[in-house]
Amino acid sequence: MATQRILVLAEELKRAGVAAMLISPSQELFFLSGYTPMMCERFQALFVTADATSFYICNQLYYDEIKEAYKEAIPIYSWLDGESMTAVVNQCFQAQQLTGKTIAVNSTAQAFNLLDIATDCNVNFVNGLQIMEEARIIKSASEIAALKKAAAITDEAYESALTFIHSGIREEEVAIFLKSKMAEAGGTNPWAIVAAGANSSYPHYTGNQRLIEKNDILVMDFGCSVDGLCSDMTRTVFIGSISERQKAIYEIVLQANQAGEKAAVPGAYIPDVDKAARSIIEEAGYGANFFTRLGHGIGYMIHEAPDIKKSNKRELKAGMAFSIEPGIYFAGDFGIRIEDIVLVTDQGNEVLNKAKKEIVIL
Amino acid sequence: MATQRILVLAEELKRAGVAAMLISPSQELFFLSGYTPMMCERFQALFVTADATSFYICNQLYYDEIKEAYKEAIPIYSWLDGESMTAVVNQCFQAQQLTGKTIAVNSTAQAFNLLDIATDCNVNFVNGLQIMEEARIIKSASEIAALKKAAAITDEAYESALTFIHSGIREEEVAIFLKSKMAEAGGTNPWAIVAAGANSSYPHYTGNQRLIEKNDILVMDFGCSVDGLCSDMTRTVFIGSISERQKAIYEIVLQANQAGEKAAVPGAYIPDVDKAARSIIEEAGYGANFFTRLGHGIGYMIHEAPDIKKSNKRELKAGMAFSIEPGIYFAGDFGIRIEDIVLVTDQGNEVLNKAKKEIVIL
Repeated sequence: MATQRILVLAEELKRAGVAAMLISPSQELFFLSGYTPMMCERFQALFVTADATSFYICNQLYYDEIKEAYKEAIPIYSWLDGESMTAVVNQCFQAQQLTGKTIAVNSTAQAFNLLDIATDCNVNFVNGLQIMEEARIIKSASEIAALKKAAAITDEAYESALTFIHSGIREEEVAIFLKSKMAEAGGTNPWAIVAAGANSSYPHYTGNQRLIEKNDILVMDFGCSVDGLCSDMTRTVFIGSISERQKAIYEIVLQANQAGEKAAVPGAYIPDVDKAARSIIEEAGYGANFFTRLGHGIGYMIHEAPDIKKSNKRELKAGMAFSIEPGIYFAGDFGIRIEDIVLVTDQGNEVLNKAKKEIVIL
Repeated sequence: MATQRILVLAEELKRAGVAAMLISPSQELFFLSGYTPMMCERFQALFVTADATSFYICNQLYYDEIKEAYKEAIPIYSWLDGESMTAVVNQCFQAQQLTGKTIAVNSTAQAFNLLDIATDCNVNFVNGLQIMEEARIIKSASEIAALKKAAAITDEAYESALTFIHSGIREEEVAIFLKSKMAEAGGTNPWAIVAAGANSSYPHYTGNQRLIEKNDILVMDFGCSVDGLCSDMTRTVFIGSISERQKAIYEIVLQANQAGEKAAVPGAYIPDVDKAARSIIEEAGYGANFFTRLGHGIGYMIHEAPDIKKSNKRELKAGMAFSIEPGIYFAGDFGIRIEDIVLVTDQGNEVLNKAKKEIVIL
């Protein structure tokens, strides 16, 4: 189990001064170990220590599955339903010399289980989100290939959807269409946010039940995974017609998207990348209607480091991948967002999504 | 927002001696408020206090959506990407007089966010799983109707799948078929565990890529939701043939399933229900191969109270709903499980799943 990724994480743990990392089922666990089981309410995690040893804690229900997945290379501590989970965790922490130590936790660890463990076992939990993210912030050649393939599948699903979308169908039908197309092309874990009319003004709207009507705006934010690496793209299209105001807003968002993408080169100071896009929207008078970060890193998780926002005071490096997704939102009226994934390269960058961004009226 | 469900939860909070409950996006949030948004890495929760007041904390990205969903009936505290989440939470806790108090957390609250809040704000978080579950452990007439409809949709999907399954297709194709059938019939959030051959020995296997072969065992564990209420059923079928050993094991599991269901009547002591089924498997010599609880409660969550296990020392009451799912598992060889949802009634119980349980060879 002491693979290169485990060794990199162990270095990050030493740097952060924590004794171990707790990683619950997730794409983060898949990244580290090549396997992630189903997550239920029973506590479950891989632990990696600062000296690069690993062990696993799970309910007996998962024992054989984990033993098979890890080829018996690491100790597994387990309990039966009805027995005390924290008693087993306590014994395990003593055996692994973690009692009294600080343990960082990944992004999918469940609070209620950790509260029980913290009550019964003498350990100190801390937020390990950044440690986990730093261990995978620079993408390898194989990860880049997977990001590109996932982006291409997303582009193709969009092109197909343009021939499918029409007024009279529900948002959900478009979401199902997009997900089916991505799955058919080999994308795993396909997902889609489809927001019509006023719903487009809520960036993470998931209601899905509205009928698409004539003269609607339609925001589609969707993606999938290839070999565990994610895609994430947003396009906004118009059903039947576009108003002058919508056209003006679209052009501002598109300019902001292009300016952000142009600025995302190696060595660029991240707040400046955010500013390159945001200033266009602010100068047009819509600063208050663009209330999100410009983008988020992407990899094994849809959202990971680096965030593209004013407060993230660091520089871009080749191998970082993230979204550029400016939007302008008018609550209860409409919203427009254009999002691509950008990969920073030695020479500049590559926009992984090739789907067209000119105004589309269907 | 002071609906009946909020009032019931507030009573549970008083009984537990905690000041408030934190409920992150989930079916638990849907149960309480009729709405649950998408969950991302940004902290987000509805808070309900012991005196039945409510407020919401979310990133600005969700502000308009939450305001619309709650019809402006409760205060919403928000921050922009890049601003300090914990600073806003701290101000909110002060305004709501929760500083220094104990706050219980629901099952979907993320540990990493709560660790940051606990570091920066003077509050004490505790596991609130049981409090949330007690508030919904007795199902209402409308909830029972939804559980029945969800179970019926699951039964029908199974019947259809029997005409579809054959050797040469992947586990995933069966999962997609089951999910599509449930969705077509009006079931939301359809899901399916499909495990062929040796994979059937891992109760929560989710690999999905194996080809179904001649003489395989096939375990299908699947369900959906209707009006937010869940179904969950498992059937085990045989592809082409069944061995004498498999037949004998199947009959033991079926007897255990039927004995557990027969024992699940109002007033029954839960450890006795577990024992009614488990003793059959133990007496047949397979006690060590049945390493899970007999069942789990079901409702707005697939897994909720009451657990049907030896350590849950309480009595069944009319209106409780739960699975009865004995299984016998031989790691790396095969597993057999039969699961139904049982509703306790005043007169005894009703097994909500009507799908046949005789041995099926396809």
